Amino acid sequence: MQRGDAFDPECPTRVVLDRIGDKWTVLVIGALEDGSLRFTELRARIGGVAPKVLTQTLRAMERDGLLTRTVHAQVPPRVDYELTPLGASLTAPIQALTDWAETHLTQILAARTGYDEAVEAR
Amino acid sequence: MQRGDAFDPECPTRVVLDRIGDKWTVLVIGALEDGSLRFTELRARIGGVAPKVLTQTLRAMERDGLLTRTVHAQVPPRVDYELTPLGASLTAPIQALTDWAETHLTQILAARTGYDEAVEAR
Repeated sequence: MQRGDAFDPECPTRVVLDRIGDKWTVLVIGALEDGSLRFTELRARIGGVAPKVLTQTLRAMERDGLLTRTVHAQVPPRVDYELTPLGASLTAPIQALTDWAETHLTQILAARTGYDEAVEAR
Repeated sequence: MQRGDAFDPECPTRVVLDRIGDKWTVLVIGALEDGSLRFTELRARIGGVAPKVLTQTLRAMERDGLLTRTVHAQVPPRVDYELTPLGASLTAPIQALTDWAETHLTQILAARTGYDEAVEAR
């Protein structure tokens, strides 16, 4: 199987990296890791996401094979989003990244304050 | 210590997630994991990055406390970039994300092709 190389500017790995590193993608993966959700449930779980942005994120993730969108024939129609095995395999690395961000948040904010004060003092 | 919550829209964890998920940040962390590099070395290692974009990325990472920028007083001046312990602690989660992207690249590209063909066939 072909393996990508993120350090090769010609390699599409970079495009993939951009997609999976996207904040909303990260949050959708986290929200769906325990099972399928409907659009309104996803929106409530993630919070603060504009419906249009969530729709675009879900479409891009479906295109990348990370999730499936299932329309149930009922009135009104019900649409479920669920991670594919490929999407589920992203859960662990994404969780590690989110954990890191949550754990080191205070240090990063302190570093920013220090940097901005040093710049202003110049 | 305060811990963030990526699912809370008011929490700055999301801003941090956006920064560390950025493609260039990911590549700089990977490039510096074996030790410090100069700007030209970093640029050559990453490849395909515009100097202005690399400069902006390095400045944002310095502000976040992920790397240090050391100017050596010589002619011409030498500037070294090196991960801080905070930046080095990002190496493992970033490596996991890059590994995932490189390993699953073929599957993602195949999913995209299938999706685009299905959309066109509608």
